[in-house]
Amino acid sequence: MKYRSLLACIAAVGFSLPACCEDGYDLWLRYSAVDSAAYPALRTRVREIAGSANSPTLEAARAELARGLAGLAGAPLPIAAEPSQAGALLFGTPRSSPLIGQLPLALAKAGNEGYVLRSVTVDGRAMTVIAGNSDIGVLYGAFHFLRLVQTRQPLDSLDVVSQPRTQIRVLDHWDNLDRHVERGYAGQSIWDWHKLPGWLDPRYADYARACASIGINGSVLTNVNANATSLTPAYLEKAAALAGVFRPYGVRVYLTARFSAPIELGGLKTADPLDPAVRAWWKARVDEVYRHIPDFGGFLVKANSEGQPGPQDYKRTHADGANMLAEALAPHGGIVMWRAFVYASSATEDRAKQAYAEFVPLDGKFADNVLVQVKNGPIDFQPREPFSPLFGAMPKTPLMMEFQITKEYLGFSTHLAYLGTLWEEALRADTLVKGKGSTVAKVIDGELHGYRLTGMAGVANIGSDRNWSGSHFDQANWFAFGRLAWDPFAPAQSIAEDWMRMTFSNDPAFVKPVMEMMMGSREAVVDYMTPLGLAHLMGTGHHYGPAPWVSDLSRPEWNPAYYHRADANGIGFDRGPPVNGSGGSNAVAQYAPKVAAQFSDPKKTPENLLLWFHHVPWDRKMASGRTLWDELVLHYAHGVEEVGRMRRTWDAQRGRVDAERFAQVAAFLAIQEQEAQWWRDACIAYFQSLSKLPLPAGVPAPAHPLEYYKSLKFQYAPGRG
Amino acid sequence: MKYRSLLACIAAVGFSLPACCEDGYDLWLRYSAVDSAAYPALRTRVREIAGSANSPTLEAARAELARGLAGLAGAPLPIAAEPSQAGALLFGTPRSSPLIGQLPLALAKAGNEGYVLRSVTVDGRAMTVIAGNSDIGVLYGAFHFLRLVQTRQPLDSLDVVSQPRTQIRVLDHWDNLDRHVERGYAGQSIWDWHKLPGWLDPRYADYARACASIGINGSVLTNVNANATSLTPAYLEKAAALAGVFRPYGVRVYLTARFSAPIELGGLKTADPLDPAVRAWWKARVDEVYRHIPDFGGFLVKANSEGQPGPQDYKRTHADGANMLAEALAPHGGIVMWRAFVYASSATEDRAKQAYAEFVPLDGKFADNVLVQVKNGPIDFQPREPFSPLFGAMPKTPLMMEFQITKEYLGFSTHLAYLGTLWEEALRADTLVKGKGSTVAKVIDGELHGYRLTGMAGVANIGSDRNWSGSHFDQANWFAFGRLAWDPFAPAQSIAEDWMRMTFSNDPAFVKPVMEMMMGSREAVVDYMTPLGLAHLMGTGHHYGPAPWVSDLSRPEWNPAYYHRADANGIGFDRGPPVNGSGGSNAVAQYAPKVAAQFSDPKKTPENLLLWFHHVPWDRKMASGRTLWDELVLHYAHGVEEVGRMRRTWDAQRGRVDAERFAQVAAFLAIQEQEAQWWRDACIAYFQSLSKLPLPAGVPAPAHPLEYYKSLKFQYAPGRG
Repeated sequence: MKYRSLLACIAAVGFSLPACCEDGYDLWLRYSAVDSAAYPALRTRVREIAGSANSPTLEAARAELARGLAGLAGAPLPIAAEPSQAGALLFGTPRSSPLIGQLPLALAKAGNEGYVLRSVTVDGRAMTVIAGNSDIGVLYGAFHFLRLVQTRQPLDSLDVVSQPRTQIRVLDHWDNLDRHVERGYAGQSIWDWHKLPGWLDPRYADYARACASIGINGSVLTNVNANATSLTPAYLEKAAALAGVFRPYGVRVYLTARFSAPIELGGLKTADPLDPAVRAWWKARVDEVYRHIPDFGGFLVKANSEGQPGPQDYKRTHADGANMLAEALAPHGGIVMWRAFVYASSATEDRAKQAYAEFVPLDGKFADNVLVQVKNGPIDFQPREPFSPLFGAMPKTPLMMEFQITKEYLGFSTHLAYLGTLWEEALRADTLVKGKGSTVAKVIDGELHGYRLTGMAGVANIGSDRNWSGSHFDQANWFAFGRLAWDPFAPAQSIAEDWMRMTFSNDPAFVKPVMEMMMGSREAVVDYMTPLGLAHLMGTGHHYGPAPWVSDLSRPEWNPAYYHRADANGIGFDRGPPVNGSGGSNAVAQYAPKVAAQFSDPKKTPENLLLWFHHVPWDRKMASGRTLWDELVLHYAHGVEEVGRMRRTWDAQRGRVDAERFAQVAAFLAIQEQEAQWWRDACIAYFQSLSKLPLPAGVPAPAHPLEYYKSLKFQYAPGRG
Repeated sequence: MKYRSLLACIAAVGFSLPACCEDGYDLWLRYSAVDSAAYPALRTRVREIAGSANSPTLEAARAELARGLAGLAGAPLPIAAEPSQAGALLFGTPRSSPLIGQLPLALAKAGNEGYVLRSVTVDGRAMTVIAGNSDIGVLYGAFHFLRLVQTRQPLDSLDVVSQPRTQIRVLDHWDNLDRHVERGYAGQSIWDWHKLPGWLDPRYADYARACASIGINGSVLTNVNANATSLTPAYLEKAAALAGVFRPYGVRVYLTARFSAPIELGGLKTADPLDPAVRAWWKARVDEVYRHIPDFGGFLVKANSEGQPGPQDYKRTHADGANMLAEALAPHGGIVMWRAFVYASSATEDRAKQAYAEFVPLDGKFADNVLVQVKNGPIDFQPREPFSPLFGAMPKTPLMMEFQITKEYLGFSTHLAYLGTLWEEALRADTLVKGKGSTVAKVIDGELHGYRLTGMAGVANIGSDRNWSGSHFDQANWFAFGRLAWDPFAPAQSIAEDWMRMTFSNDPAFVKPVMEMMMGSREAVVDYMTPLGLAHLMGTGHHYGPAPWVSDLSRPEWNPAYYHRADANGIGFDRGPPVNGSGGSNAVAQYAPKVAAQFSDPKKTPENLLLWFHHVPWDRKMASGRTLWDELVLHYAHGVEEVGRMRRTWDAQRGRVDAERFAQVAAFLAIQEQEAQWWRDACIAYFQSLSKLPLPAGVPAPAHPLEYYKSLKFQYAPGRG
């Protein structure tokens, strides 16, 4: 390492090339030196950091500006309490800086957490102000300013006002106390519980910095499949130590609450949410949590889902359960995020209908400090799903979005799939519940229904891997999540562009082709895994690789065959209205009438969701004029070709990216192409065993017979539940 | 990171301070820049790297010299095929370099794997030769030369000849295929099986470099609690990819063989080693292994121990089992390392006697390519044990040493304990089997019995943690293991000194006090955990923290109470000869008569092993004049005091070490002091509940009542089996 590092260092000083250790640890906060000839704004507009850092958060803002601008400018900047020259960067709040209080900044528009970046003239000297009404707003503004420099934006006439459109922007870590991360593909949990609170890994602060840089303000430390031990004093002490590290960065700590904790920890005989002893137990326990963590955020709860305990065990509703916890948290300002991902212990005719069926009747029954956390689609984070019908259907209950950043169903960390496009698709989906334009984004940000609370959660893809996310490009998904939580209307492409420029290069020869690669990458995964509205064909348990043939698991909705319903005649899940008493599950009826009408009609259903809503004969004519069978096969083939194209795109970037990151991305793309081929071949082999149809002309047969694909076992695939 | 890195880089270039990212990843191969005024040898003796790198191993040697010397000298050195100037470093073998063939180097003394470092004059020019009979010898010599520079040794009249005293110098990784490391305290396994063979983490090469730098020539990739899946083609392909990375560095790959694999993988009804079908199955499987890995090293086997399958399941002996595998491996040059750590499924009167009882009768019955791998002590890697009586007792069977580098029983990675002293104590123990001087080291290196094979194994402490070993000082244990495997007679102190100079600093103000801290550190652990010959008082299962009170586990020898046997009258395990038909287990009889005589007599038994061999009354007078009880308590108290002293020693080094490593060591020492206090308090509280004796004057009582210590639970302690 040392030799390479040292040479790189020398290079960095001499020639502004990327500096030491390009292993991805620095994320999008690389701050590598700018060629100041090509970007003179840095010289004229960034000459001094001025302001009073009289709080830990303002200290963090100043430190980040100092660190970032020293890297970008190639040398440390002068630090001053008051601006003393043209080109000063003045940061602060009206309280920390009288000058900021006097300038006409229209800070009212920035709200509690937002900021203003503005070019101003003070005593004839051109300066830039980074101002907020709160210290955290200033920190967010500092990161925004650094991003402008990192992406080489003009700095001469800045006039930026930004405030988050959602209040609660949290990462959900599905991390167990033994450091196993459920659905984690980036090593172990970054929380080293065993060494906490005695050892505070510097990573904890870097995690909080990275979160703050994209506006994330909460971290649920523990798995939704919860462990009551996390609520014991020894573990609260550990969580408090993390909270102490995160606090200056505006990141509050949340925990998951195991519903049966009163039994497991308290020795009670019941966890019935209406039982006074249970309520008292939670109240006392929550009081204890706040004694450890005075700004504790609240609880995330998965209840009565996949075997987790919950209020239904006592014939109570989700609202009863959530409100009990909410009551304990309310005096401290804490909230409950209650997951709508439910999944009965008894089989139902259509799993896609279940969350709606259980939650819509409860609309209006949740306490004021409860949000219901809804996955983007009705099933479970598939490469493509329609939007969840809950959005728009619970006007009196704040619904927060749950996206999955970790790629449980999208190939794990070795498949490159930029999820900004997936999330943008979900957020822009129009529920039509209040006429055209009633998008999911407007549900989420509270605009449509006037929610008192708003939020977005992302299931984290962060682990102990040096590059945090398992792959370099998966960092983009963490980044995009934060940006979309701040602004659900932000375009996925501009987010990708920011990320690429900050993380890799501003070279247009890099940005353009690699952006195209990113923007198309999720659709490639859809094509080689689950095209045309298919879903949940992944291997049992671990979700690694294809297993569409599995149909013998004890619960029907665990089986891929349950989802695709392929047979000799056709393929797809009929979710349309029942015709003559048979047929569809009528899941479409959970949408607003106009949406329902569209999804009910195979001719109007978008082809990319066709098999989600309809069972379609193999010989059905598609828009292309081809049969469904041919179209399906060609989608699979196209997915593989796209990955080949991605590889070529990346290979052409050799030399524009440091060798270390270039090599890993190249190796991962090679794995992805191999596995895309495997997906294609296995799925075609299986579906052909049912359709008995020939492959379209020119499409090569699968490399192996179906039995080969069925024989593959992956007992040690990572991230198991 | 970046800001700090960049500043550090600038600093490194300008002022020869430590460079980027002092996070321990570079191990003892840091190669930080030398102050050439204080060490002019670098300028005069290291001016050019010359030699022909016509093999991957010679390439690795040249690359390491280039990397290391560029770092040390602050600038890259010229590289030449032939030496062209005074101060050239000429590396190679007589085959790669005709000049080396002509020089009078006495290479015969270097053997197959050794090397010569010699100052020579060629055509009137002073040069240094790094020569070996084999390419790997040259690589080892290159690392030795770099070490001389790193530790600031004179280079003007070098005359070093070194060859390893053992043949097989392996790390045993107790790593599972899901990346859990049994008894691992440094994160996950560094083997990312899921991404292999497609992704070759650069860490794999750095691992092999580190191993080669200290002479380690083998790596057992998989856990001794073995999984037959590691022998399937998919996993052999993964192991082969690792072997390919390791090969240039002389590190051969070994695997663990699960004895029941013929049943589990082969579908046979038996794994009986005398069954022809079983033998044929192993032969075919081994042939397949060699098709994947032509230089595969062989198998490590744990059989009929702690529930693992083995030949005794079929009423066959360990020799039958080992020889069956040996027969399959022999045609390919592979070996079997058969562990003597056995531990019957039925209780025995003294676990310490079991390995001897099972193995000594088999002496001479093992095939030529079998070694029996024996732990240093009769039980299990305790902070202190007497040497295993097997050493010296099997003259016709090559015994290799098994040390545990990972600190299963020494406080995990947060306790600083340099194990060089523990291992030195074991290696210098005198078996007396062939008169005075029949040390364990002479058994191990083959000298005493003329073994045809020799070796030393270390249970690795390596994981995915950035610093490899979980803590910076645990790197010293990896280092010391390699150095002792190369030379079992090497002094622990000089190894520690080399390591400290290479890893931290050559500043005498650092070296002297920190070396004293290291050299005393293991004894401190003995004192606060298991003084005076106590053993195995650790918490059940995880072995974290004290639990001397545990006595209710289903197998007697799982219970700490089995080992300490404390009661109202006294404490200790009577292993002396039975007196009047009762009393001792007579484990002493397994030693040579003079050793047995010493250990049989409490008056002659060293006090630091007293309670290992004798049950002693609480009021027994010790050498100090104090009672055993007082002495025991004072040892516990002293252990804690020593850790306090270690903390003060380290705190005084602030500024002599980079801030990043300084902080982690300081935090870990604080944890260690807390946990030492916990050990002291819990053990004193428990033993006092039996002895009913007052504490010696001035010794404070435990902080909590005994019940408190008994109530502590550590369900998620790392490294579970």
